[in-house]
Amino acid sequence: MKIGFIGIGNMGFPMAANLLKAGHDLVVHDLVVEAVQQLTSRFPEKIKALSSVKAVAKSNVDLIITMLPAAHHVKAVYLGKEGLLAHISPNIALIDSSTIDPQTARDIALAAAKQGNPMLDAPVSGGTAGAEAATLTIMVGGDEREFIRFKEIFSALGKNIVYCGGSGNGQVAKVANNMLLGISMIGTAEAMSLGVSLGMDPKVLAGIINTSSGRCWSSDSYNPFPGVLENVPSARGYSGGFGTDLMLKDLGLAAEAAKLAKQPIPLGGLAQQIYQTFSLQGHGNLDFSAIIKLFQKK
Amino acid sequence: MKIGFIGIGNMGFPMAANLLKAGHDLVVHDLVVEAVQQLTSRFPEKIKALSSVKAVAKSNVDLIITMLPAAHHVKAVYLGKEGLLAHISPNIALIDSSTIDPQTARDIALAAAKQGNPMLDAPVSGGTAGAEAATLTIMVGGDEREFIRFKEIFSALGKNIVYCGGSGNGQVAKVANNMLLGISMIGTAEAMSLGVSLGMDPKVLAGIINTSSGRCWSSDSYNPFPGVLENVPSARGYSGGFGTDLMLKDLGLAAEAAKLAKQPIPLGGLAQQIYQTFSLQGHGNLDFSAIIKLFQKK
Amino acid sequence: MKIGFIGIGNMGFPMAANLLKAGHDLVVHDLVVEAVQQLTSRFPEKIKALSSVKAVAKSNVDLIITMLPAAHHVKAVYLGKEGLLAHISPNIALIDSSTIDPQTARDIALAAAKQGNPMLDAPVSGGTAGAEAATLTIMVGGDEREFIRFKEIFSALGKNIVYCGGSGNGQVAKVANNMLLGISMIGTAEAMSLGVSLGMDPKVLAGIINTSSGRCWSSDSYNPFPGVLENVPSARGYSGGFGTDLMLKDLGLAAEAAKLAKQPIPLGGLAQQIYQTFSLQGHGNLDFSAIIKLFQKK
Amino acid sequence: MKIGFIGIGNMGFPMAANLLKAGHDLVVHDLVVEAVQQLTSRFPEKIKALSSVKAVAKSNVDLIITMLPAAHHVKAVYLGKEGLLAHISPNIALIDSSTIDPQTARDIALAAAKQGNPMLDAPVSGGTAGAEAATLTIMVGGDEREFIRFKEIFSALGKNIVYCGGSGNGQVAKVANNMLLGISMIGTAEAMSLGVSLGMDPKVLAGIINTSSGRCWSSDSYNPFPGVLENVPSARGYSGGFGTDLMLKDLGLAAEAAKLAKQPIPLGGLAQQIYQTFSLQGHGNLDFSAIIKLFQKK
Repeated sequence: MKIGFIGIGNMGFPMAANLLKAGHDLVVHDLVVEAVQQLTSRFPEKIKALSSVKAVAKSNVDLIITMLPAAHHVKAVYLGKEGLLAHISPNIALIDSSTIDPQTARDIALAAAKQGNPMLDAPVSGGTAGAEAATLTIMVGGDEREFIRFKEIFSALGKNIVYCGGSGNGQVAKVANNMLLGISMIGTAEAMSLGVSLGMDPKVLAGIINTSSGRCWSSDSYNPFPGVLENVPSARGYSGGFGTDLMLKDLGLAAEAAKLAKQPIPLGGLAQQIYQTFSLQGHGNLDFSAIIKLFQKK
Repeated sequence: MKIGFIGIGNMGFPMAANLLKAGHDLVVHDLVVEAVQQLTSRFPEKIKALSSVKAVAKSNVDLIITMLPAAHHVKAVYLGKEGLLAHISPNIALIDSSTIDPQTARDIALAAAKQGNPMLDAPVSGGTAGAEAATLTIMVGGDEREFIRFKEIFSALGKNIVYCGGSGNGQVAKVANNMLLGISMIGTAEAMSLGVSLGMDPKVLAGIINTSSGRCWSSDSYNPFPGVLENVPSARGYSGGFGTDLMLKDLGLAAEAAKLAKQPIPLGGLAQQIYQTFSLQGHGNLDFSAIIKLFQKK
Repeated sequence: MKIGFIGIGNMGFPMAANLLKAGHDLVVHDLVVEAVQQLTSRFPEKIKALSSVKAVAKSNVDLIITMLPAAHHVKAVYLGKEGLLAHISPNIALIDSSTIDPQTARDIALAAAKQGNPMLDAPVSGGTAGAEAATLTIMVGGDEREFIRFKEIFSALGKNIVYCGGSGNGQVAKVANNMLLGISMIGTAEAMSLGVSLGMDPKVLAGIINTSSGRCWSSDSYNPFPGVLENVPSARGYSGGFGTDLMLKDLGLAAEAAKLAKQPIPLGGLAQQIYQTFSLQGHGNLDFSAIIKLFQKK
Repeated sequence: MKIGFIGIGNMGFPMAANLLKAGHDLVVHDLVVEAVQQLTSRFPEKIKALSSVKAVAKSNVDLIITMLPAAHHVKAVYLGKEGLLAHISPNIALIDSSTIDPQTARDIALAAAKQGNPMLDAPVSGGTAGAEAATLTIMVGGDEREFIRFKEIFSALGKNIVYCGGSGNGQVAKVANNMLLGISMIGTAEAMSLGVSLGMDPKVLAGIINTSSGRCWSSDSYNPFPGVLENVPSARGYSGGFGTDLMLKDLGLAAEAAKLAKQPIPLGGLAQQIYQTFSLQGHGNLDFSAIIKLFQKK
């Protein structure tokens, strides 16, 4: 398939590379010329770099995928004067893999639909490691026929591909899951710190929790207490992984969505404030499981 | 083995019955005479009812097990003038299966040890259903040789028998696990309510969470959103299960232990207040997963 | 002075009326024609109704005041194609008395300044009663010379007129004050409910707090416990006053501003969630001091 | 009057001294002999040091006052084998000025009443400075006739003497007031930090709050932002004042009382956890207004 790809960043680069490896032709654009050049130099025959969003919109592609840092970039790329919707031909499909608030995702999809461009929201989780290994979880919202039509594309990018329902639901699923993750991680950090400070061995405590009703991914697959698991951020000083500031961004999206939906999220809201406190103390770049440091003596 | 058993309540009754079924002889006491009579009538040959704690202490048993509602009962039964420690012979072992704060468990075990009575704390989880089916999780603290010595007894009562380390650690494990459980349940309730109010199907959302990083026991085995799982309290109007007021008791123990240990538990503390709010509104007897009602329009 | 006034709602109506009483001439616009007609019929000689924002922009006035419900209305009125900035002559001054987030206030003031229109943000507090009695508190941000120039106008509208510094600072002051108010009210509700449930007389308890370090406006001037004060919402079933949903709006603005500023607001954030819970239970129209109902048995 | 005084610590020393200055004769006891000697050397003719609680109980006094650090000391001094109640003559009155939980205060007063000793709980606030200047606030619970009988004694110790109702109500009033204080201080810290980080001058912001609905003692008399007020802990690096760990103790009493009363205290509970987090980071000795450091970049 001939695909336009906008946003060759930390996540977009390996995703675009996986599409190229799967045999697709790409037309790419990013403001960071070096990223585009690096990608182009690796796949010179199957890729064409363009210097503007507008040029991608006007190129002869079946589908355009975008992978951008935040909602305001997505708005600019889709709705700006020089953006996609202003210059794209009808019927070209659109997939936005950025993580943004559901409302903006729906507003843009509606605008696209009005001019004949089907659009899916398809945020991913799994980090750069998952993007490189093509093992991302991809949560897709929009028309189910479009989802089926592009399933092969998603399969080149990830492993756990889930259809979540109508437009914006991919974002809803991600926001709901990540809010629960942010809560569980702090809960696990509190429970592990409390148990150990009361005299338990951390591995024994984690073992009990992991076979009991406190069991959760944060405890059994990503335990924040150093020494409990290998190959997780807590085993290497909380480097790598999913940064505190990225978790903070997702909890911010959850808070915004909850406000619009008039839904109370007392633990989700407090989790956001706790990560914000930790980030203010200078730890925004550490993996989010480092939040356990807040509960341990310096 | 000849065993004394004090506390024939909701949990103690089926536990005592399971010991009798396993072939042990019991000497029992409870202030509620009916419960004792009912048990005695079922196993007339292997059971002897006594009218006081002191009488149990003075009877010829190898081991005394207690299963009481709260720390003040445990203190009275063990440390009172007419209590166990004042009248027991040295070397009779003691197992307290009540759920109480770790500090009281340690204080009593120390007093017992001083007069030659080895003591284990062995709180359980799994509810009355688990007690009846002998599938309880039992978390045991105290001397490891005593744990090994009585492993057969524990095996007559439960399935997942875990040695947690020194005295009081059984209570620590239970308190840490249940605090995390109380947090995860509210987190799951918030995430499910938010996702559904934003337009997702609850089963689809639960499916995504359960294969992603938000996965937890509260979501995959006990989901609070009606219709997601069968045979859980949310499928039957939140009857049965683990009452809100019992979760509140455990979070109270966590808060007390955290205060003594000078450990912050921001989410654990807030979870306690949220269940308290719900209980004040008259829902203390509903299963704790009913907390999701706080996040849904009436 | 000849003044344009856009937004003749609950607050705007008495504010416009006070300007007319003070002798100014008004050119007014609101989408709700009835409100405009009602105002016009009271001051037929000094008022002129116009049918669009654009018409107000193009009329011959010295100053245009806007009083609108939320940021998206303010954006539309100032930045829309048919909005003020697109059609106004340079040098006409602008005062926005809506309560919105500081960032939007700054963005609009900057856009206005670029085309030669000085702009002040001037949110008010004091409710409709304060608007009618011209006793509002007005918090003003922007160029100090403009503040001085229009002080007389502000004096016709309120009593406590405070210059808060550069553009947007009026909104910052309001958001900070109201966040603290929202927190103090819940704190007072918790303290009063706790003390009374432990056996104290509410008036005696309020008396002690009001002469001690717990003293706050929520306790000494607006006590949420029924029977402590007269002429406050708690004395009349929480009708009138400052609605829970309005407090919720202001806490939402605080949360948004805090997110942008990367500032943690743990109590402010939790207060938002608590009012949201109360609103979801159907109490959004009650005065915000009704939050004490969450802490009392039904 | 001839008065027994037990507990010559930071607070007890100046209180005892004020009673001596007012002309009373004292019989004193404290485990710290140096404190007793220092006091005795200053008032050699009017004071007699005794070496045990029992000796004070058996001495010929009209009234015994106790001023102890925590509930377990109070229990030991009143209820121990060698304690006051075991050895005191009937009719000697008792006043406990320690800050403890209301339930313990009531239990002890009831035990005292049963053997004919009227007892008042009379916790104080105002710190060592208030104790020295005899300007303490004293909150008194118990029989009103006893309160009137000893009003002259209280007047020698403090300025704001309040009768709070029946036994334990002095403690209730203190716990409720201090919980609200602990909440307001964090709320003020959040609001000041947010406003200043959004560009406001701290003095201007405090000025607005102090004349608006966010007004509270924490803002107008003890502002935590450095530079706003003189002669408060924030003006001298948060030394002196009311230590974070003392606030933590009072919030712990509030949490315990709320648990017993089945009252939710979401903000009070979170405030406790926030001060605990701050204390764990090594700041327990700083004045509690230093909590603002959690909301400011290092």
